[in-house]
Amino acid sequence: MISKILVAVDGSSHAEKAFEYASYMAKKCGSKLLIAHVLEEFVGVGHSILKELEQRDIELLQKYKSRAKESAASISIDVIESRGNDVAEEILRIADKQKVDTIVVGDRGIKASKEFLMGSVSYKVTHYAKCPVIIVR
Amino acid sequence: MISKILVAVDGSSHAEKAFEYASYMAKKCGSKLLIAHVLEEFVGVGHSILKELEQRDIELLQKYKSRAKESAASISIDVIESRGNDVAEEILRIADKQKVDTIVVGDRGIKASKEFLMGSVSYKVTHYAKCPVIIVR
Repeated sequence: MISKILVAVDGSSHAEKAFEYASYMAKKCGSKLLIAHVLEEFVGVGHSILKELEQRDIELLQKYKSRAKESAASISIDVIESRGNDVAEEILRIADKQKVDTIVVGDRGIKASKEFLMGSVSYKVTHYAKCPVIIVR
Repeated sequence: MISKILVAVDGSSHAEKAFEYASYMAKKCGSKLLIAHVLEEFVGVGHSILKELEQRDIELLQKYKSRAKESAASISIDVIESRGNDVAEEILRIADKQKVDTIVVGDRGIKASKEFLMGSVSYKVTHYAKCPVIIVR
C-alpha cells in the first residue's frame, strides 16, 4: 500500500513535473497527497522579505492544492509550508514526521558535457530518505 | 500516464522490495510491467558457468512473472534477461530501448556510521536515467 505521498514543490518546472507525477500516482493508488514547500532561509534576509516570500509560497501551495483537487477530487490533500536553511534536510524531516510512504522530488540537475549532474536537493533526499524516493526529470 | 514500468531484479531482498513496489504501481496505474535481470559478466568466468547462471536467472524471472500475474491478472508483463559488465548501464540501455516511463530499482546501500551510502547500481541509474527513477529501500 502506498497510502501517503509527499511531493516537494518550489515553483520550478522540475517541481511541476514532480507534482504531476505525484498527483497522478496519488489518484491511481488512492493515496493521501502532501504538497510541501520549504522556504530556504538565507542569513541576512530581513523579516519583511521573508514574510513576503512566505505569502507567495502559501499562494503557490494553494494553487497546487486546487489543481490536485481538480484532477483527483476523491483524494485527501494537505499542504505544508516550512522553513529551513537546508531544503533537503527539511523535506526528510517532514517525510519522517508525516510517516510518508514515498517522497517525490523534481531534479534540477544539469547536463555537463556527456555527464548528467543531479541537483543537490534531489541528490541528498535520494541518499538519506528512509522510504522510497521518486526522482522526476 | 505511466504506461510502462521497468523493474530490475537480482534475487536480493532489495530487489524484492523494488519488485513489490513496481508491481503494485503497475496494477494501480494499469501499466505494462517489464521485469529485467542483468547477468553481470566477469572476465574469466567460463561459458558453462555463465550458462548455468543464465538458467538460474531465467527461472528467477519466470518466478517473478508468475507472482506479478497472480497479484495483477489484468496487466501485461514481460521479462528481459540480459548480460553486461556494467549492470546500471545495461538497465539504462533497456529503459531507453523499451521507452519506459519509470525505472524502479532496489537500493543495496549500506549504513556507514551516521551516513547512508547508496549502492553503485542505484546510484548510477538515478544519475543517468532520462525518465523518472524510483529508489526503493
